[in-house]
Formats: sequence, C-alpha cells, structure tokens
Amino acid sequence: MTPAPPRPELPEAGEAAPIQPRVRRAWYIACTSAELGQDVLKTEIFAQPIVLFRGGDGAPGALLDRCPHRSVPLSLGRVVDGQLACGYHGWRFEGDGRCAHVPAFLGTPDAPGRRCLAFPTREQQGFVWIWADPGSPPVGEPFFFRLMDDSRYQVITRVLHAEGSVHAVAENALDVPHTAFLHGGLFRVDAARNQIRCVVTRRHDRVECAYIGEPRPEGLVGRILSPSGGVVTHSDRFLLPGIAEVEYQIGDENHILVDAALTPERDHRTRLTAVVAVRTRMPLWLIRPFAEPAALRIFGQDQRVLAAQTDNLRRFGEAGFASTELDALGPHILRLMRQAERGELEDPDAAPYQREFSMRV
Amino acid sequence: MTPAPPRPELPEAGEAAPIQPRVRRAWYIACTSAELGQDVLKTEIFAQPIVLFRGGDGAPGALLDRCPHRSVPLSLGRVVDGQLACGYHGWRFEGDGRCAHVPAFLGTPDAPGRRCLAFPTREQQGFVWIWADPGSPPVGEPFFFRLMDDSRYQVITRVLHAEGSVHAVAENALDVPHTAFLHGGLFRVDAARNQIRCVVTRRHDRVECAYIGEPRPEGLVGRILSPSGGVVTHSDRFLLPGIAEVEYQIGDENHILVDAALTPERDHRTRLTAVVAVRTRMPLWLIRPFAEPAALRIFGQDQRVLAAQTDNLRRFGEAGFASTELDALGPHILRLMRQAERGELEDPDAAPYQREFSMRV
Amino acid sequence: MTPAPPRPELPEAGEAAPIQPRVRRAWYIACTSAELGQDVLKTEIFAQPIVLFRGGDGAPGALLDRCPHRSVPLSLGRVVDGQLACGYHGWRFEGDGRCAHVPAFLGTPDAPGRRCLAFPTREQQGFVWIWADPGSPPVGEPFFFRLMDDSRYQVITRVLHAEGSVHAVAENALDVPHTAFLHGGLFRVDAARNQIRCVVTRRHDRVECAYIGEPRPEGLVGRILSPSGGVVTHSDRFLLPGIAEVEYQIGDENHILVDAALTPERDHRTRLTAVVAVRTRMPLWLIRPFAEPAALRIFGQDQRVLAAQTDNLRRFGEAGFASTELDALGPHILRLMRQAERGELEDPDAAPYQREFSMRV
Repeated sequence: MTPAPPRPELPEAGEAAPIQPRVRRAWYIACTSAELGQDVLKTEIFAQPIVLFRGGDGAPGALLDRCPHRSVPLSLGRVVDGQLACGYHGWRFEGDGRCAHVPAFLGTPDAPGRRCLAFPTREQQGFVWIWADPGSPPVGEPFFFRLMDDSRYQVITRVLHAEGSVHAVAENALDVPHTAFLHGGLFRVDAARNQIRCVVTRRHDRVECAYIGEPRPEGLVGRILSPSGGVVTHSDRFLLPGIAEVEYQIGDENHILVDAALTPERDHRTRLTAVVAVRTRMPLWLIRPFAEPAALRIFGQDQRVLAAQTDNLRRFGEAGFASTELDALGPHILRLMRQAERGELEDPDAAPYQREFSMRV
Repeated sequence: MTPAPPRPELPEAGEAAPIQPRVRRAWYIACTSAELGQDVLKTEIFAQPIVLFRGGDGAPGALLDRCPHRSVPLSLGRVVDGQLACGYHGWRFEGDGRCAHVPAFLGTPDAPGRRCLAFPTREQQGFVWIWADPGSPPVGEPFFFRLMDDSRYQVITRVLHAEGSVHAVAENALDVPHTAFLHGGLFRVDAARNQIRCVVTRRHDRVECAYIGEPRPEGLVGRILSPSGGVVTHSDRFLLPGIAEVEYQIGDENHILVDAALTPERDHRTRLTAVVAVRTRMPLWLIRPFAEPAALRIFGQDQRVLAAQTDNLRRFGEAGFASTELDALGPHILRLMRQAERGELEDPDAAPYQREFSMRV
Repeated sequence: MTPAPPRPELPEAGEAAPIQPRVRRAWYIACTSAELGQDVLKTEIFAQPIVLFRGGDGAPGALLDRCPHRSVPLSLGRVVDGQLACGYHGWRFEGDGRCAHVPAFLGTPDAPGRRCLAFPTREQQGFVWIWADPGSPPVGEPFFFRLMDDSRYQVITRVLHAEGSVHAVAENALDVPHTAFLHGGLFRVDAARNQIRCVVTRRHDRVECAYIGEPRPEGLVGRILSPSGGVVTHSDRFLLPGIAEVEYQIGDENHILVDAALTPERDHRTRLTAVVAVRTRMPLWLIRPFAEPAALRIFGQDQRVLAAQTDNLRRFGEAGFASTELDALGPHILRLMRQAERGELEDPDAAPYQREFSMRV
C-alpha cells in the first residue's frame, strides 16, 4: 500500500505540552455542603492543594494546604475551636488565613509572614464555592442553578470526575454528533437521520447552539420521556467560567435542564457537579430506574474517551484539532476561556455573533 | 582502605540523558501477519503510537494513533468496511490516511487538515513491516530472511521484548565474551579456554566478526548439536537498520542461522523478532525440547542485564563505555547507526574496513 | 467569609524545586558492619548508587554502582576472591576501583578508562562510613560515638529511614515545641506549661540549644525515667555534617545521649542510624519494654509528618519557612550546612554566636 504524501508532520513524542486555558478569576464548586462537615477536607484547584474547614461561625474557610511555618500540609491537622490547627507544631489559623495561635510562643501569633494563603468562599444552594485567584478580590457571585429551588421541578445532584480539561469536558457534554456514534443505541440511533438547522449564538460570556426541527430522539431515553413523540426544543450552552448547560423541551410537558458545573482540579482533571432539574409527564420515580443507569453508562463511555484524549493531548499537544462546522461549540468555548484567562472579554453590549449550519441527526 | 585517585568524574544523577541513534528512514517489523487480524492493533515505533488495521483489500494500513479531529486514539475505534472508524465521532480513515466519512456532516469528508499521518507498509514472509519515517518515501525493501523459505531448513519464529535500545540489544546478541560469564555452563564454559582469531569486517551497511579456529562449543548446546565435535565456522553480523545475525556451521551437517530483526518501539524498548533457521544432523523434534528452554533461559538472563544497563544509561548517560578489542562489533554498530541516522553512509564501493585480534574462548 | 488581603503569592504548582544543601566532603554511615557480609550491598548517597563489598583483607570497598565497561550495575555481580565481578562480562574490580581481570582478554586489564569510581571507606565502632566526595581526599575521620564503648552505659543501635532531607530530619529530631503537639501525651503534655530559658550557641561546625529550668518531663517517658522528679539538664545539638544529638541528665543517676547519624541517601531520603547510650537509675531491661515502643511510635509520627512536608517542599520549594525564635536550631543547621557545602566554615577560633529566649514547655 502506497500512502498519500503525508500532510501533518510527525510530532516528537512528549514534546508538545497541552496548554489549557486557566480562568483563575472565577468561582468554582469545591464540594457540596454535605461533604464539608466538622473535619478538614482536601481538594485541588488548578493543581493547588487546598484545605477546607468550617470556622467558628460554620462558614467555610479555604486555605492553601501548606502551613507557612514548616510547609506541612494543613490537611493533616484538625479543627480546634473553629480554627485549623497544623498537625506538626499546632499553629492555628482562621478561615481568612490569620495565625491565631502558636503553642509555647510568648509573642503575638499573627504576623504577615505567618499567614496562610486564603481563598474567598461562598456557600449557596448546598454547594461550597471557591474564588480561584486568592490574589484578587472576588468579582460577581457564583452561578445560580435557576430551577433548583423551583417546586415544580425534581432535582438530582451528582458529583463525577473526568480525566479531561474543563474545555474537553464542556465540549464533550455539549457535543451532539458523538452521541449517535459513541452512545449509539442508548441515546440516538445511527440510522434514520433527519436534517436539522443549528444556530450558534455567542455573547461575551456564553455561547449557545439551538437545534431547530429536531424530532423526538429515537432510542431509549426519548421513548421513555415522550412516548407520544412531539416537537423538541433543544439548546446546548456554555457559560463562563465552566457551566455546561443542556436544555430539552419535548412536547409540552417535558422540560429537562442539565447544568454541569466544572471545576478545574488540575489542567486535565475536572470535577463535574451535575444538577439535573426535570419537569416531566411521567413521575420521576418511574423514569429514574431507567434514566440513571443509562446516564451513568453514557458518562462512563465519555470518561473513557476523555481520558484517552487527554493522554494524546499530553503527548501531541492540542494544536491541530480539525474541526468542521459540526463542532458547533468547542472552538467558541476555547475562545471564551482564553479571553477570560486574559481578562479581555468582549463588549457585553455588542451584537452577538451568529452562525447557522445544517446537520443530519 | 585508601583508594587510588579517582579518574572518572562523578556524574550528576539524572543529568546525562542517553542519546540513542534513531534510524528513521528504514523498515521495521511492526507485527506478524497473524497478529494483525480483523481488529485494530496498537504498537509503537520510536515512541510514536501507531494503529494497524487491514484495509478493504486486506493490505495493512498503519496510522499515527491520533484522530485529527479531537486527538482521540484511533486504536479505541474499530474497522468498518475496510476503513478505520474513530470511537469518538465515527470519522473513518483509509490506510493511506485519507478521511472517508464524517457522520452527520453534509460536506466532503476528505480535506488536508482531516487526514491521518500514514506510515508506508509491506507484508512479506509473514511479517508486517513499517517505514518509520512517514515524511519520506520508502527507499529499498524490507530485509528478506534468506533461509526462511528454503525447504531444507526448519524455521522457528519467536517475538520477544527487551528493555534496551536497538544498539544495546544488537551488541548483546552478537557479543561472544559475555556468554561464558553470564550464561556460563549453559552455552560456553569458563574453564578450558582456547585462543582464537577474530576478523572484523565493516562495510557501508553492515559489520561482521568471523571467529577462526573456534572449537565446538563446550556446554549443553554444543554437545547436543554435534556430539562428535568438528570444525566450527562462526560469524556474527549486524546489518542496518537493525538485523543481528548469528551464523554457525558445526561440522558438515549442522547449519544454524539466527536472524533477530530489531524494532525500536522506544529508545530503550526493543521488539525482537527472531527467525531461527536450522539444518542439522539431528531431527529438530529431538533438539527442540532442550534447545528452546535453554534459549529462553539465556534470553531471560540477557533481558535482566539489559534492563539494568538501561537503568544506568538513563541515569549516567552513555558516554564512557570502556571498550576493549573484545567488544568486536558494538562500537561499529553504533558508528553505522549514527551514519544511517544522519543519512551519511560510507561509499558502498570502498574497500571494507578490516581488523584482527585474538581472544580466549 | 471575606478573607484578609492575601500576603504570600500563590506559587505555581511544581515550579519551585527544593534546594537542599549537599555537604559532599564528609563521612556518612553507609551501613552497619553486620549488614556488609560476603555479598554485595547496594546503597545510595546523594542519589548516587553505590555498591559495597568486602575486599580480600575484609576491608570494605565502595564503588559507584556502574561497570565502566557497559554501564551495568555492579551490584548484579558477585564477590570473587575479594574482587567485585560484574555480572555481565565478568570484569573484576578491587576496592580502590582498579580493574583486576577482563575474561578472555589477552592484554593488561587495568587501564585508566577501565577503573571504577571508588569512595574512601572507614570501618569503626561497628559502622561502615563512606567519604561522599570521591574527587577529593578525605579530611578528618568519621564521628566517634563517645559513650558507645563506655561500660557504664547500655547502648542500643537502630537504623531507620525517613522521607525527608538531612536538614528536615535533624530539625525534627532536635525540635522541642512539636513534641507537645505531635507526640502529645506520649512525651510532653499540652497542659501545665512552665516557662523556661533557652540558650543557643553556634560555633563553626555545630550549634546547640541548652534548656534551663526545665522540670522533669511530664508524660510516660519522664515518669519511668525519674519517678522522683529532679532537675533536668537538657541540650540539643547538631554537628556537621549530619549528627543530631539529644542529651538529657535527669536527677543525678539518669543520663541519656541519643546520637542520630544522618546519611543523605537522596535529597529527601535520609538514613538515620541512632545510637542511644543510657545510664539510668532503673535497669534497662525494665525501661526498654516501655521506652522502645514509645520511641518507635514517636518516630512513626515524625516519619509521617516528614514525608508530607517533603511532598510540599517538592511542590512549593523551601523558600518562606516562617520561623519564630522557638525554631531554635533549624535555621542555624541550614546555615552551617550551606557553609559546609561551599567549604566556607567560619573561623573555629572566633567567639561563638549566642542568643537567649524563653518558651513555655
């Protein structure tokens, strides 16, 4: 077999490091409120180890997991009277990083060099959020899950992890074409394709793709949700810094809003906090035994692909994704993240960018 | 104890990286024909992941294991109608790298940016060969095992792996002095040494050492092969880019030709495809039960030494091998590989380099 | 919670490499005399692999664990007639590094390029010491354990390992404040604190802290040693290059001298050879069943903290230890080690540096 003259050059193994945008001036979910009890909790954001604990008033504190004294991880310590005590010499810290106590020391404990690096926190709707840039004061408030407290909706929350960047996980979560192939049979089916119109709209802090003329999805999920068929209104959205939102209206009675809040624990490991709000014709207790295993199986397939993709990104770098117009949101998400990383969002009042294309689903 | 003044300087741990020659413009065995069935097969060459599959005509295709779309390994995919389909979005590729199908896409699938990097392939004598430099057209044809199809010979093929470079494995395979020590008792014995003449001949693409006056090897292997003794004609050869050949004629009736085709999967991991052709006084079914376990035991000892040598080469670098004239071929192999790496072989018509020395075996 | 403006900048993960001083021109314990029998013994110093063996006269030889011929670790070999034979080709070396034998070779085995890098050795008091810089002749003799051969003392020797640098292990071993917290209840107790005076004295090659007015330690160890109470004389000392010494006199009859000889196997792995000499009111057989498990438990707690500290030092670097005056010896130990690393000790005849402070114990 004589191959065509090769086009891409052979990359040197391990040479090209992937460069993931790091949107640091942003709120990310660190954990659920329930996860943070009276013990310390260890997490990471942008590969920085962070220790969480509840102060005397119950409010969450988030400190870099490093005692300023001898660099020992504070997560080896314990909470004493609402202060975090290092496990080595017992130095104690407030949630704002101030040193409150140095055992055996006759002087004043607090001093500039003896403070911990503290991350601003918020607790709302059952989640603990961290402002990822301790060097800048928080701007704005964390994302609000708009249907979470709406009594007409049933809400399910799940925490998952993927070995992929926020960008890769968001693109995967909001990508339509791969579902027919990777999740073929479970979600959409490969045969009997219909041509639909897709409208991409990008604003300064978000990008959305609306799918027009989409029939009720074939396959298991579609049949359960809407046995009688019906018109589908379907939009996929990304909101800075890391919210992937999928919204389905199927017929009149079925409304599903899936919000995945993505936390960059490392460049290529993402915590995914999924909040699924459902208003449906059928009672949730009837759908859930089918939908939940299917959703977890789908996510398992995605996790495997994302991990393999990450391996190759580490090896070959990220340059050279060969997108088609079907990659409706991925390139826009990357653009928004890079702008946010540099702090150079576009004018909120400018007319949105729009583009249309067709695809077979 | 007062040591003599030290001569070599203490190398800094981890400082010196070994620099293995990489002869890229060359054919290497990727797998046996039997290994490549209807499924995809994953391999590496110079640490580049490569996916192999059979196209519609059954001919082997070899692509860089990276889909140009989203960088996912193609080896997670499957073969559909003689095309390799990526497991993420179902893009399909021919063996020459062209994109043949993009599911849901209304446009033309093939485009320069959507092609895979393809490696030329050959299939001959039951082996699939890859041309390791996809950026240059193949020059010449793969090595031909000259006795493999000769009906007077019985042929055994074995695939083995070693944690060592092509150079280290070739030198080991063609090195006489270590056999007495490392494999002492199994192959040669340490006592009762004879002095023999050795003649090294190097041409532009090969180097050979002929051993003159060698008695029938003592030890197990020799006694089985030629119980009556007899004159031995023994030559060890290296042929670019990575064939290590050992040839023995013992008495009139025994002829053994061992060809080890070496594939650089990584700088320090080599696939060794051994083709052993034997014409012997004794039937092979009688020798094999003794010879095969002995050969595997010998190779196991070599594997252990090669892996330990590789550890030290990684730590200390390769500079400073202290060769004597007994290292008949190793330095020449390195010289040939470096010349081939730079594409600067010596004149094929020049008189060969020759050198003689003596050793006790 | 609104944190105070952060002071320290967020370090980039993995950016700052810890820079441990490496005092190479020094004697370190490689092993006990008992550990080095007739077989080869493998160890490391400053991450250099070293192979130890006993020569024909029984004296220990220490060679870089790399055969000059083909870089194979000599520790895969064996001792033959008081020479170390490489396991690959059987080259043999003396303890001073000279090549004594090359099998099959007709020439003279020894030659400058065929010598091993040899480390000077000493054997005394049951320990094998290595001079860590093979490029310079030894200066001075190894540390002498002054009470080891004193018949009035009972001596216990223990070899332990910690995942921490010599500096971190020495500071930990000589640090008073952490014992109340980390080992609380076992050694000292957190309540009932007394204020004591501490006097730090630093000379060119050592630094000591004397604790004045210290009551008999509360807690288990103190009660066993000196049931009747009594005045305590307590000094902690560090002696270059790596001896941490703790000395207690409790009442008239109890004298404990703990010498920990620290060997830098790697920048962050330390071999600790503890020699505990005890003269006590109570027979050792009565104390030992209590003291030994307690000491091992204390050391286990220290090992865990040291390993976690090392993780953070690797991540964040060592800059920015926030010391108070309670860190009586650590900063001085670092200063002495850096001076010794550069070979620039202060004038031995200069007046010592002195400083006093108070603490609660």
